[in-house]
Amino acid sequence: MKAVKRIVDLRSDTVTKFSESMLQALVKAEVGDDVYHDDPGVNQLQERVAKMMGKEKGLFTVSGTMSNLLSILSHCKRGESAVLGTYCHINAYEQGNIASIAGVMPMPVNENSDGTFDFDVLATKILPPDQHFTKTTLITFENTHNKFIGKALPFGYDKKVSEFAVKHGVKTHLDGSRLLNAYYYHKERNPNIKEKDLTEGYDSICMCFTKGLRCPIGSVLVGTDEFIAKAHRWRKALGGGFRQIGYIAAAAMQSLDEAETIFTRDHKLASMLHRELINAEIKCEPLETNFVNYWPKTDLKLPEYVARLKDNGILVGGRIDGSVRMVCHAGVNEDDVELIVSTIRSFQKNDRNKN
Amino acid sequence: MKAVKRIVDLRSDTVTKFSESMLQALVKAEVGDDVYHDDPGVNQLQERVAKMMGKEKGLFTVSGTMSNLLSILSHCKRGESAVLGTYCHINAYEQGNIASIAGVMPMPVNENSDGTFDFDVLATKILPPDQHFTKTTLITFENTHNKFIGKALPFGYDKKVSEFAVKHGVKTHLDGSRLLNAYYYHKERNPNIKEKDLTEGYDSICMCFTKGLRCPIGSVLVGTDEFIAKAHRWRKALGGGFRQIGYIAAAAMQSLDEAETIFTRDHKLASMLHRELINAEIKCEPLETNFVNYWPKTDLKLPEYVARLKDNGILVGGRIDGSVRMVCHAGVNEDDVELIVSTIRSFQKNDRNKN
Amino acid sequence: MKAVKRIVDLRSDTVTKFSESMLQALVKAEVGDDVYHDDPGVNQLQERVAKMMGKEKGLFTVSGTMSNLLSILSHCKRGESAVLGTYCHINAYEQGNIASIAGVMPMPVNENSDGTFDFDVLATKILPPDQHFTKTTLITFENTHNKFIGKALPFGYDKKVSEFAVKHGVKTHLDGSRLLNAYYYHKERNPNIKEKDLTEGYDSICMCFTKGLRCPIGSVLVGTDEFIAKAHRWRKALGGGFRQIGYIAAAAMQSLDEAETIFTRDHKLASMLHRELINAEIKCEPLETNFVNYWPKTDLKLPEYVARLKDNGILVGGRIDGSVRMVCHAGVNEDDVELIVSTIRSFQKNDRNKN
Amino acid sequence: MKAVKRIVDLRSDTVTKFSESMLQALVKAEVGDDVYHDDPGVNQLQERVAKMMGKEKGLFTVSGTMSNLLSILSHCKRGESAVLGTYCHINAYEQGNIASIAGVMPMPVNENSDGTFDFDVLATKILPPDQHFTKTTLITFENTHNKFIGKALPFGYDKKVSEFAVKHGVKTHLDGSRLLNAYYYHKERNPNIKEKDLTEGYDSICMCFTKGLRCPIGSVLVGTDEFIAKAHRWRKALGGGFRQIGYIAAAAMQSLDEAETIFTRDHKLASMLHRELINAEIKCEPLETNFVNYWPKTDLKLPEYVARLKDNGILVGGRIDGSVRMVCHAGVNEDDVELIVSTIRSFQKNDRNKN
Repeated sequence: MKAVKRIVDLRSDTVTKFSESMLQALVKAEVGDDVYHDDPGVNQLQERVAKMMGKEKGLFTVSGTMSNLLSILSHCKRGESAVLGTYCHINAYEQGNIASIAGVMPMPVNENSDGTFDFDVLATKILPPDQHFTKTTLITFENTHNKFIGKALPFGYDKKVSEFAVKHGVKTHLDGSRLLNAYYYHKERNPNIKEKDLTEGYDSICMCFTKGLRCPIGSVLVGTDEFIAKAHRWRKALGGGFRQIGYIAAAAMQSLDEAETIFTRDHKLASMLHRELINAEIKCEPLETNFVNYWPKTDLKLPEYVARLKDNGILVGGRIDGSVRMVCHAGVNEDDVELIVSTIRSFQKNDRNKN
Repeated sequence: MKAVKRIVDLRSDTVTKFSESMLQALVKAEVGDDVYHDDPGVNQLQERVAKMMGKEKGLFTVSGTMSNLLSILSHCKRGESAVLGTYCHINAYEQGNIASIAGVMPMPVNENSDGTFDFDVLATKILPPDQHFTKTTLITFENTHNKFIGKALPFGYDKKVSEFAVKHGVKTHLDGSRLLNAYYYHKERNPNIKEKDLTEGYDSICMCFTKGLRCPIGSVLVGTDEFIAKAHRWRKALGGGFRQIGYIAAAAMQSLDEAETIFTRDHKLASMLHRELINAEIKCEPLETNFVNYWPKTDLKLPEYVARLKDNGILVGGRIDGSVRMVCHAGVNEDDVELIVSTIRSFQKNDRNKN
Repeated sequence: MKAVKRIVDLRSDTVTKFSESMLQALVKAEVGDDVYHDDPGVNQLQERVAKMMGKEKGLFTVSGTMSNLLSILSHCKRGESAVLGTYCHINAYEQGNIASIAGVMPMPVNENSDGTFDFDVLATKILPPDQHFTKTTLITFENTHNKFIGKALPFGYDKKVSEFAVKHGVKTHLDGSRLLNAYYYHKERNPNIKEKDLTEGYDSICMCFTKGLRCPIGSVLVGTDEFIAKAHRWRKALGGGFRQIGYIAAAAMQSLDEAETIFTRDHKLASMLHRELINAEIKCEPLETNFVNYWPKTDLKLPEYVARLKDNGILVGGRIDGSVRMVCHAGVNEDDVELIVSTIRSFQKNDRNKN
Repeated sequence: MKAVKRIVDLRSDTVTKFSESMLQALVKAEVGDDVYHDDPGVNQLQERVAKMMGKEKGLFTVSGTMSNLLSILSHCKRGESAVLGTYCHINAYEQGNIASIAGVMPMPVNENSDGTFDFDVLATKILPPDQHFTKTTLITFENTHNKFIGKALPFGYDKKVSEFAVKHGVKTHLDGSRLLNAYYYHKERNPNIKEKDLTEGYDSICMCFTKGLRCPIGSVLVGTDEFIAKAHRWRKALGGGFRQIGYIAAAAMQSLDEAETIFTRDHKLASMLHRELINAEIKCEPLETNFVNYWPKTDLKLPEYVARLKDNGILVGGRIDGSVRMVCHAGVNEDDVELIVSTIRSFQKNDRNKN
């Protein structure tokens, strides 16, 4: 990388760091040993998120990946199967732990372009009792959907999911790592909704504090008391138990207090970035939340193009389909957006000149 | 079922029973305790099949399902992944044991209508080293393909598979439960070929004695010495070890002696059945080996239609796509074919009359 | 091995072969495809053994190892634990499949010298609910106990087991691979007892047809309808499903008809062999069923001693404790006993002469 | 609990909280996203601990339980076995995850009273190649040993372990959750030793920051580059990956800077507590590090006795053998020791008066 004034890291919102207020909350936290159930802060956080999602109980875990794995281990017995999206995080980015750790058979179904499933197709994956077949126990969803550029599932979708699940006798899990992005997307259009209006239809949900919410670790998994009791045991088996995690929980509580400010700002920035790229006649994916995706006009191969942006201090993600992913978050500001757009434009001009 | 003169069971070639000559071979077998490696007959059988397939060593197992499972356990470490057909037996009919027992992540790919894969699609499933991804270690194939109505993979396909596998550093397994059906299909068109001309390109192959070959149990898995040593250990772990299995091995040896007669006859019968259905203007799948598939002209729902055939002494399989599957084997004769076709025709007429 | 007139194989009763009557039963068997539940003979055998054991239902499996594994998979969820004997077959001779395949934590307890457990010790293995501990779900027993030289558990022991299990809320499984040896041992002392008088106290039991009963494969696992339904599914997952297994079932039925004759003779032979060794002032383990164990007076290392017996046509097993194991079965006769004893005596004389 | 002036929590050193200096280090940390390998602090911590232990590389994990599990997953293939102490943390307090998650067969051996194994006994657990046996790949050790009251393994023991391991072709892992307690125990007697003088003989070691070292989460696992690469992948599969973990790593670095002060003080306090109990004629376990164990003179049942201490503001652990465990750490001071001893003495007097 050349010596550049400033690095703008748009690879993911996971690169965010504590705000000052979050650090202050951490420093002042009252803590205890969570293995002895003595940590008041983590108990408060777990209750707050559970209530937010309309569920009985919550469990703080290291990561979204662990929350998803705990959910599978707790909903399914080994040898049962889970239906999930071909491109969802669980199927594509969690090292196949559904099979290797949980011993649960994945039955991938291609998602629609908005991250939803066709319920008719789902129905074909609920197999009749037969010794040749696994028993389908679980269907998982993702909101916002990472591989579909931060798409928010339609409002009311969880109710349809619930109806389907009850009819077919299966459980449902929502990987809501970026659920609050979806929530603030819908809230802008429908100011009276609550978070649980997006989640009540699922049996379990996880949301992460390590994306827009700026924590270094942490995800909360929610569901019934019985479900969380199982997940709590499995967390121990995986070595995911904590001691004085109230330090982190205090920062996470603070991040929830700031959530509206955070996500409104992140989405506004993404919107600005998206608009300026469109203005520059650059082909972009439709925008919903904080993921901006564009197809660069360039003769370079994508890895080279990405490296060239990096040389100019802009870190982005190249995708298999040839597009570039930029994620807006608390570490990016309006000036950065100007810089990004002008850099991208300058690359296009240069490329054009070369031809 | 009404009192009918004769039951013709076309559900599968797995319903076949020992021929007299096979039973005689069994009765005369010299046997020993295979756990002590003292059974001469099973050793001969394993060598014979290994040589037939162009491989170093063989292992007798209870079933094709066990052979496939042993292959996955022996080629893959837990946490690695295997690419396989969405509709293949391993993915769809073995109770998800690839995940639940082997702890291996399945990566299903839709097969083409002839049972092959598009190599470009396969290539996208060989993921780069990254902690988010499983390592793809194995690709499995099926010949003849059960769900594609007994289709034989094209001659020479194993060589293309081998080329791809070497290039991408993966192993390959052929579920050849009905491999000899494929072999005699190709041999009719190309009389000089050997069985191994269909199999040398794969790292491991299993073939079954319980389908056309009329044995009550038994499959042989073949591969390198090292591969079979691993599979042998896993067979023990699964409780699949045998004692004086030479009784069955002797019958299996006899079935191989009779294989050309058996499969030539089965395919000829299927051809006769297929032709007469076509003559009766009944829509059929193209025929390759011993599976005949047709779409009944009927107002009945498929389960009722199948039940009505059963009442007339004809057992068939109804498929999800609304078609009927009939499998020809040693338990069916030319008279049965006449009976089947006349019964099917009579149903059509009756149905037509009803309208 | 020198050219010897006759090989007497005392390594195990697993080396037995079909009797003529069993082979005849096999040849005459009416069979069907057991995957379609169409095999009448296997159904009869399963019912007969279940009734014999005082249980609802039975399942024919390949081997005792598979029966034991199915029992663990069906009684326990993954992550639960099973208490078992340190030296029992499941813990010591089944390749650790309780952990590797079933994912169940073994909690070994040293057996008493008669194969029983001390119930006070068992009680310490039933742990209180705590996230650090596994939940103990199952205790397994073995009768006769292989490593304790064919010891039969005391009559009435199953009732004590049942009382303990009910009190502590656990299930129990009996590895009764050689249960009929135990039964005929007790019957000789108490002629009115039935087989189920040894088994009713356990939740599940398996017995094998491949030891004294002379079959090449086969074990029956019995328990409640619900338990067997689970075991049936797991058998499929392991690839242990059968087709026309009625051939073997018919031989197994015949072996049950002959059981009293078989085991009375085996035990009588063992008794003769044991008595003559004692008469020759050779130190032996107390005898109960068909396992005769002695400590050779020799300067040779045990493997050399065993090899020298082999050179004289006598195959035995050397044990880690320096003793020699000889198992009586249908392949051994009274003349063999004479030969064995005279050979062993001649070795002692020779050894003594050497000193 | 009555209203008491001060709670003294002696249940475990896991109840410790950040020192002020550690919190300050956290607040000032430079961090990055560890999934992108961008966190400098965690890299420094991992290197420091690896060097301290004499190993190539380190990996920061959530907990000692996770480090141990990663070690088993990385040293062993599924189906292999690990020899470990019957009473060690891995076998007794990690929910059986060696079996349920790792699929590795535990072979427990009773520890000697100093936490060591008898190498002759270990040798009997290295089984010859045989399909009935698992392959023994790993032996685990624990230092200090939790269930043996904080016993430090003898100085030089790791060298004997290494010699044994090389001879028998197995790997070794040290659960050194409280390794620094052992180190400062030996250092007091032999001031020139380094930490690695206790660890070089093992293939992998983990040590925890959540015990005496006062961190809320964190353990570092060390070993060869190749071993840590495997463990890193498995950490992801378990969902144990971190983002800006440099916050915690900075506090952990600070704790290492303070380690000598911390452990010298903890051990001195324990010594004072132990001496005063002995002076009061109370039976105690021999003391080595920071665990003080005594047998109360009381007519109360242990849970009631423990509850009565709790009512007086003193939290301790009751053990299955009827003794009481008290662990000294940074949250306990000399005044507390006076209070504890006087409280225990007063209970004895009262009990005596009652009689």
